[in-house]
Amino acid sequence: MDLSRLPAVPPLPSGFSGLLRARFGEACQTSEAIRTQHGASESHFPTVLPGAVVFAASTQDVVDCVNLCREHGVAIVPFGAGTSLEGHTLPLSGGVSLDLSRMDAVVAVNHADFDCVIQPGIRREALNAHLRDTGLFFPIDPGANATIGGMAATRASGTNAVRYGTMREAVLGLEVVTAQGKVIRTGKRAKKSANGYDLTRLYVGSEGTLGIITEITLRLHPMPEAIMAACCAFETLEGAVDTVVQAFHCGVPMARIELLDTALVRAVNRWSKLEMPEAPTLMFEFHGSPAGVTEQVETIRALAAANGGGEFVWAEKTEDRTRLWRARHEAYYASIAVRAGAIGWTTDVCVPMSRLAECITQTRAELDRSAIPTTIVGHVGDGNFHVLFAIDPDSPAELAEVEALNASIVERALAADGTCSGEHGIGLGKQEWLIAELGEDAVDVMRTLKRALDPDGLFNPGKIFSM
Amino acid sequence: MDLSRLPAVPPLPSGFSGLLRARFGEACQTSEAIRTQHGASESHFPTVLPGAVVFAASTQDVVDCVNLCREHGVAIVPFGAGTSLEGHTLPLSGGVSLDLSRMDAVVAVNHADFDCVIQPGIRREALNAHLRDTGLFFPIDPGANATIGGMAATRASGTNAVRYGTMREAVLGLEVVTAQGKVIRTGKRAKKSANGYDLTRLYVGSEGTLGIITEITLRLHPMPEAIMAACCAFETLEGAVDTVVQAFHCGVPMARIELLDTALVRAVNRWSKLEMPEAPTLMFEFHGSPAGVTEQVETIRALAAANGGGEFVWAEKTEDRTRLWRARHEAYYASIAVRAGAIGWTTDVCVPMSRLAECITQTRAELDRSAIPTTIVGHVGDGNFHVLFAIDPDSPAELAEVEALNASIVERALAADGTCSGEHGIGLGKQEWLIAELGEDAVDVMRTLKRALDPDGLFNPGKIFSM
Repeated sequence: MDLSRLPAVPPLPSGFSGLLRARFGEACQTSEAIRTQHGASESHFPTVLPGAVVFAASTQDVVDCVNLCREHGVAIVPFGAGTSLEGHTLPLSGGVSLDLSRMDAVVAVNHADFDCVIQPGIRREALNAHLRDTGLFFPIDPGANATIGGMAATRASGTNAVRYGTMREAVLGLEVVTAQGKVIRTGKRAKKSANGYDLTRLYVGSEGTLGIITEITLRLHPMPEAIMAACCAFETLEGAVDTVVQAFHCGVPMARIELLDTALVRAVNRWSKLEMPEAPTLMFEFHGSPAGVTEQVETIRALAAANGGGEFVWAEKTEDRTRLWRARHEAYYASIAVRAGAIGWTTDVCVPMSRLAECITQTRAELDRSAIPTTIVGHVGDGNFHVLFAIDPDSPAELAEVEALNASIVERALAADGTCSGEHGIGLGKQEWLIAELGEDAVDVMRTLKRALDPDGLFNPGKIFSM
Repeated sequence: MDLSRLPAVPPLPSGFSGLLRARFGEACQTSEAIRTQHGASESHFPTVLPGAVVFAASTQDVVDCVNLCREHGVAIVPFGAGTSLEGHTLPLSGGVSLDLSRMDAVVAVNHADFDCVIQPGIRREALNAHLRDTGLFFPIDPGANATIGGMAATRASGTNAVRYGTMREAVLGLEVVTAQGKVIRTGKRAKKSANGYDLTRLYVGSEGTLGIITEITLRLHPMPEAIMAACCAFETLEGAVDTVVQAFHCGVPMARIELLDTALVRAVNRWSKLEMPEAPTLMFEFHGSPAGVTEQVETIRALAAANGGGEFVWAEKTEDRTRLWRARHEAYYASIAVRAGAIGWTTDVCVPMSRLAECITQTRAELDRSAIPTTIVGHVGDGNFHVLFAIDPDSPAELAEVEALNASIVERALAADGTCSGEHGIGLGKQEWLIAELGEDAVDVMRTLKRALDPDGLFNPGKIFSM
C-alpha cells in the first residue's frame, strides 16, 4: 500500500456527533488530542484521525454505537491499547474509534477448569496480576502490554507460543456484536467442540472487520512447578538457529526460545543498561516439573555446546527472569532508539523449521548490505522472526529501500512455504503479501465473508484486503 | 429432526447421469448396491440414496463434478469412509455422492518440519502405516478408521486429543474446491500465521457444506521415546472420574485417558473375548521421555489409589497396547452387539472438567431407570463422553424414549456450560441442540456464511442447520 495515497478521511455526517453525545455523554470525545491518540500508530503508518472517540463501558454501549453508526453509514474501528504494528486501528474511512479499554473486568475465573471470562479491554499484564494468587496464568505474551481483545482480534502470539499456542488456541469462546447489532456467543466452556462452523476462530484474527469482541472466554494454564530462564551467546547466527531447529527435532517442550542477533544485543545493552556479550544470543525459558526442567536444560546445553554456544547465564529468581525478559520485550523500542528521530518498521515472516536457518542467515546478509540500522529478533521456536528497521520517516528513498528489503524477505519466506505474517496480522501493511501468499481466489473468499457479515462495509474498512 | 419426515429425494435431472458418465466413465456409478453403500449410515439414520456416485481421482475431477452439478442445480455430498455418526453423508436432496476415497495419496512427508501433505481419502491407519519408518505419527484417533478428509470435515478428535489436540489443531492448511469451482489454498506450512481470516478453521468442521477438501497439510508428531499403557478398575464411577479430574489439575500430560463404565466393560469382554474386571475402568496411555513417563505413572497411581482404583494392568509391548486399544476402539460395535438386531445411537456431550463427575454420574443414574441397554465411554481428559444406546430400530416407543434421554443429557451438559457435540459434529442429529447451545442469532451467522459461499445451496444441503 502506498501510504502517501491513503484516502482522504470523510467528516462525520452533519449532526452525528450530537447523536453520539446524546447517547454517550462524556464517553464520547471529539478533542483533537484524544482523536490523535486513537489515530496514531506505533509503527511507520501516518496518523489518521477518527471523527469521534466513543469509550464503551458495556456490551450495550457497543450495540448502541454499532446501531447508530449503521443507521448513519458511519465506519467504526475498535480500539484497545493501540499497540498494533500493522496500522489496524487507523480509521481509514473516518467515523468512530470505539475504545474498549474501559471494558476491562475479569468476569469470572474458573479455577477448576483452568479458564476465565474477561472483557476485551483488560491488558495481559493486568490479567496476570489478577490471576497471581490462583496458581494459574495466561501465557500468551506478544511483548507489548496489549489488550486481550486486541490480541484476539489480531491472532497474536509471541514468546510463549512455542509451548502454549497462539490466541487461536487460547480463546474458547467469544461474545461478539455483529454489524446488525446482534449479540452472539460463539462457544461455551468445554475444552473442545464440533458445534458447527468455528465462529470463534473466524472472529479471532478478523481484525475488527467482521464483528466487535465484547467478551472472551480464555484458556489458562497452571503455573509450572519449576521455571528456569537462561541466555547463551553463540559464535555465529547459524549456530544459534541450528540449536533451535535441533531442539525442535528433539521435542524439547521449551516455553520460550528467542533469538536476538548481534545488532539487537548491542541495542538492548544500550537501552536496558545490560552487559550481555555482543553476539547472536538465545534466550530460553523452561517450564515443568523439577525433573522435567532438568532434563530439558541438559538437552539444550548439549545442543548449544555442539553449535558454538558459550556459557549459560541463568536467571532462576523471579526478579532476574523479569529483567531478562524485559530486555527482550523492549527490543522494539531499543532497536528504534539506536537512531535519533527514527521510527520503526517491522517484518513478521514465519517459515517451516527446516527453512529457518537459511532464511535468517540470507536475510542478515542482505541487511548487512544496507546502511539502514536493522536488528533481528525471533520467536524462533515457531519459525517466526522479525527484522526491525529504524527508519528516517522523512526520507522517501529510505522508505523505498525498506519496502524493497521487506519484499525480498517476504518473497524468500513464501518461497520457503512460509507466511508473510506470523503474528502481527495483515492490517494495512501486508495486504499485497496476503494475496501473494494465498492467491486472489482465497482472498476473494475472505471478501465474500466480509460482504456477507458486514454488507455496509462499516467495520474497520480497508483492513486485510481492499474490497 | 423427525427422521420419519426426511424430505423425499428428487431424482437427478433428465440426462444428467449421461453427462456424468461422459465425463467420468466408469468412475460414475449408479447401481443400487453402490448407491446404497453411499446412502447408508453407521448410526440410527435411515438410508437415503444418492442419484449417482462419482469416484474422484484428482482435484480436477472434483472441480469438474462441482461445475457440472452447479450448472444443473444438482446437490453434491462428499463421501470418505462413511463412518460418521451424525448422518453427514446422507444425500438429503439426492444428487451426487462424491466419493474421495480414491484420492488417498501421501503427497509429501516433510520429516524435518513434522508435517505432511496428503489427499483427503487416505484413512488414518494407512497414514500411520505409511509414516511407520519416519519416526513420526499422526496422533488423532477417533476409533473408526475414518478418512483424514472426513475427520477434517467434522473436526474429529478422539482418544489422543487430551494431549495432541483435535483436527482443529492438526490441520495446517487445506486445498478446497469452492462452490464456484475454484481451487483455493487456505494456508502454507508455517507453524502459525496471522494471515487474514482463518479459512482453514472455517472449513475444518464445516461438514462438506462450504467447500470440498481436496488436499490437507497435517501436523505430525515425533514418536515418543517411551510409551506405557495401562488400565485400572475402580470401585465406583465417581472414583474413576475424580481420578481424571485430579490428573487434569496436576497437569499430567497424558496422551490418553479413557473411561469405560461397567456395562461397557461387560460388552467389550464379550465382544473382544477379554477378561477385564467388570467395574468402571480407566484406560491410560503415557508418552514422553522414560523419566517423564515414570513421573506421570507415579502421579496417576497415587491418584487412582486414593480414589478406589485397583491394580494397574500394564501393556508395555506394542502388541499388548494394540489389544488394549482395540478393545476401546470396538466399544461402539461391542455396545450394539449386546442386543440382537439392535442399531446404535450415540450422544456426544463435552463439559468443563469441574462438571464432569456430576454429569456422568447423573447420566448413569438416569440411564439405569431405562430398560434400553446403554454403555458410557468417554474421552474424559477432555470432558467428553458418549452414551451408546443399543436400540430396536422398529420400535417408535423406544426411539421416543432415547430422544427424551438424549435431550436430558444434552440439556444437562448445556446447563453445565458444555457443548452438545464434542467431536461427532452436528450433521442431521444435533441441529436443534446447536440452536439451544449457541442461540438463533449465532446459527443465523452460520447460515449467512453458508449463503455467501454456497449461494445455490448445493454442498451437502440440510446439514448443521436448516436454511
